[in-house]
Amino acid sequence: MLVLITYDVNTESSAGRTRLRKVAKQCENYGRRVQNSVFECILDQAQCVMLKSLLSDIIDEDVDSLRLYYLGNKYQTKVEHIGVDRGIAADQTLIL
Amino acid sequence: MLVLITYDVNTESSAGRTRLRKVAKQCENYGRRVQNSVFECILDQAQCVMLKSLLSDIIDEDVDSLRLYYLGNKYQTKVEHIGVDRGIAADQTLIL
Repeated sequence: MLVLITYDVNTESSAGRTRLRKVAKQCENYGRRVQNSVFECILDQAQCVMLKSLLSDIIDEDVDSLRLYYLGNKYQTKVEHIGVDRGIAADQTLIL
Repeated sequence: MLVLITYDVNTESSAGRTRLRKVAKQCENYGRRVQNSVFECILDQAQCVMLKSLLSDIIDEDVDSLRLYYLGNKYQTKVEHIGVDRGIAADQTLIL
């Protein structure tokens, strides 16, 4: 299923900036960055539980915000993009 | 239906910062800000077409990115939040 992950991490402190880097790094392991703080991840149930747990452990719930949107398996018609595109589709194989 | 709008506007120029403010202002007219560049809007088809048209006219498609995610009418179970919350639910009436 497609899971959209969006986050706002408070970067006023150096600890915050470290959290931001860690959140991005974890999301990069599971999906593709489509905008600065927006990742699209194709996950099964177990991967989703794992990623959510990892991200919850990183963020400071008093100042950071993390949102997950579950778009299911038939997500192709549920996403629309306008403007510059940053990457490849989350389920598209990249052949180098 | 719930339409999630996420955007990255290139703010390297003052024109970019103006675009960013305009995009946010239009989104505020139609929904609630849940994160810095993420809005949740409850829209019917006509409103959605209108908002998309307004935003498309504002952004610079060569450098800005706008994404829309259509979460349908049964969206309550498709959204999960962790951490600090910025606002009220998009379909919740605010009594002052």
